[in-house]
Amino acid sequence: MKFTIQRDVFVQNIQHVSKAISSRASMPILSGLKMVAFDEGVTLTGSDSDISIEAYIPAEDGDNQIVDIERPGSIVLQAKYFADIIKKLPETTVEVSVNDQNVTKISSGSSEFNLNGLDPDEFPRLPEVEQGNAFQLKTDLLKALIKQTAFAVSTAETRPILTGIHWGLEEGKLMCTATDSHRLAMREAALEDSPADMEFSNVVIPGKSLSELSKILDDTEDTISVTVTDNQCLFKTKNILFFSRLLDGNYPATKNMIPTSSKTEVQVQAKKLLAAIERALLLSRDGKNNVVNLKSIGESTLEITSVTPEVGKVTEEVACDSFNGEELRISFNGKNIIDALRVIESDDVTIQFTGAMSPFIMRPADRDYMLHLFSPVRTY
Amino acid sequence: MKFTIQRDVFVQNIQHVSKAISSRASMPILSGLKMVAFDEGVTLTGSDSDISIEAYIPAEDGDNQIVDIERPGSIVLQAKYFADIIKKLPETTVEVSVNDQNVTKISSGSSEFNLNGLDPDEFPRLPEVEQGNAFQLKTDLLKALIKQTAFAVSTAETRPILTGIHWGLEEGKLMCTATDSHRLAMREAALEDSPADMEFSNVVIPGKSLSELSKILDDTEDTISVTVTDNQCLFKTKNILFFSRLLDGNYPATKNMIPTSSKTEVQVQAKKLLAAIERALLLSRDGKNNVVNLKSIGESTLEITSVTPEVGKVTEEVACDSFNGEELRISFNGKNIIDALRVIESDDVTIQFTGAMSPFIMRPADRDYMLHLFSPVRTY
Repeated sequence: MKFTIQRDVFVQNIQHVSKAISSRASMPILSGLKMVAFDEGVTLTGSDSDISIEAYIPAEDGDNQIVDIERPGSIVLQAKYFADIIKKLPETTVEVSVNDQNVTKISSGSSEFNLNGLDPDEFPRLPEVEQGNAFQLKTDLLKALIKQTAFAVSTAETRPILTGIHWGLEEGKLMCTATDSHRLAMREAALEDSPADMEFSNVVIPGKSLSELSKILDDTEDTISVTVTDNQCLFKTKNILFFSRLLDGNYPATKNMIPTSSKTEVQVQAKKLLAAIERALLLSRDGKNNVVNLKSIGESTLEITSVTPEVGKVTEEVACDSFNGEELRISFNGKNIIDALRVIESDDVTIQFTGAMSPFIMRPADRDYMLHLFSPVRTY
Repeated sequence: MKFTIQRDVFVQNIQHVSKAISSRASMPILSGLKMVAFDEGVTLTGSDSDISIEAYIPAEDGDNQIVDIERPGSIVLQAKYFADIIKKLPETTVEVSVNDQNVTKISSGSSEFNLNGLDPDEFPRLPEVEQGNAFQLKTDLLKALIKQTAFAVSTAETRPILTGIHWGLEEGKLMCTATDSHRLAMREAALEDSPADMEFSNVVIPGKSLSELSKILDDTEDTISVTVTDNQCLFKTKNILFFSRLLDGNYPATKNMIPTSSKTEVQVQAKKLLAAIERALLLSRDGKNNVVNLKSIGESTLEITSVTPEVGKVTEEVACDSFNGEELRISFNGKNIIDALRVIESDDVTIQFTGAMSPFIMRPADRDYMLHLFSPVRTY
């Protein structure tokens, strides 16, 4: 194998693929990055037990020659060193060549690396995903769906299914749901061009996979294609294939958890509420529960308090844009509310309460595609 | 105590003083920040066993009213929470008031914190430093002296004296020296207005103290006053007093370590050498010794190599601007050279070698106020 490649393009794609590569890989070969050169360009592949990523670097992009292939071939190199090496090379192009002992020479200007490569035949194959049954959505919408749900997945391994995000597709609507059993985030999106008869449910994608995918994707309106099978999903852009394993098991029936009526409905400015709760948590940041108490004062104001006995007490007031229903006194994990407020892009939020011991709902005031649900905390 | 203060000025000074406050303070009172309000303004004080910092916030700065003192007094508050609280308050001014149980109310707009304060009489007094015997230097020069030496102090506690920077003053020249016994950094500065008869040596200031001082100081040409006593030094700016304890013990006689002749003298571009050594260390970054091998090729080129058997080999070439003397083959800790090259502000460096087993010297090619000394490493 021997080729010359533009350094910047090479680095960017190595970084993409490296997101799938763990430094504590289960098999030594998986700590490597596979590189294949062929007449049309170079592919890079990284994989762990959950995610596989393949990036294709075309030899030419329009008039721009990106790779000059002198001799096709393939190699696996330690991923850990590779991105850094290429990034720090002195010139704008890099020459890569492999000898018959798998030693790979990387040279650029006055700099030459000779790296011990691994046998590319040992590298596992990419998952096989039938690509017929795909739907499309815009990249920026997919990134929003991920951002607005992934924060709510469970990080505990006690219920592995909750470390994933549930995706369901019905009547052209994609519904994404994440919960750690104390809070829940739902986000819905209408798919413009989905096949009319396509439906699925109980597709649970690891939250970590989607977070890594989101880091690779640019905020563009380019279309991304999504294919779901029994145990894999595939996200496909122009030059990237991103495979993630799906989680086994039944996701809880979250729809039943959402209260359908409320006793108190409040509308407040999202930024003011966020700042008030952030301050209320300042004294308890070493604490474990982040408990914040909320109380209505008449119909004009919410009072938020937090007490850390040895340190002191915070009292915050947030003006209500509107207040309807019963007076209110409830305690909750302020950190969970902060997480949700940070992904709600609207100026105002509506919060619906059904009593001090019942879960409560927060939504953007001007949209109905998103819902956040929170359990209250007992404070006695 | 009761006063109203501009939030931004308050935050900045709290952050300055907090640099002296350890979260693992030896006495509980030292985890606090002392605040004193009097007619002319507010002072803030923080202290640990090494450093004490006092910041003075004047009531008025020209026409700008910064503090409005309603009732003088004093309090000690937990430093850990304090800077964050003030920074996140909603309005541009903050009201501070203390009741007779030392509970301190901090309020700003819709936000109110009630913090448990500590008795200010328990807070230790600042060191007493006779201020007569002071010399002056410009703040940006002091910052340069610190930056160009502090990186070379020892971080091991086996020889505590080497965790400090040695300062000596003789004939109006201040000489700063730091060494961890494997490398040494020296920087000299002529003091414009130092008292003619002032001299001292064996003043060893903890490297950490000087690094913290440097963070507080702006890069200005304002003058800073330095007073040195037997066991303390005091740095004094317009509104800040910074005290540091001095280290006990005799600093090694570093002058004798510096070779006075050389067998090979090379001049190279600092940036090229830095980039080459950085790349040479990419493969060994998990290694402990960061060994790099250097070899002259004719009189035109230095070849730098590094081998990590399981990973591979790097070969770098750096062109010499000039080369005089014997051919060269030496190994050294590349990380130490990188540290020095990062603080040398000149385009070119001169390196003087006295054989493979002798320490070697690096200096800026165009200045003689700075010197870096390195031990070679045996590789057999």
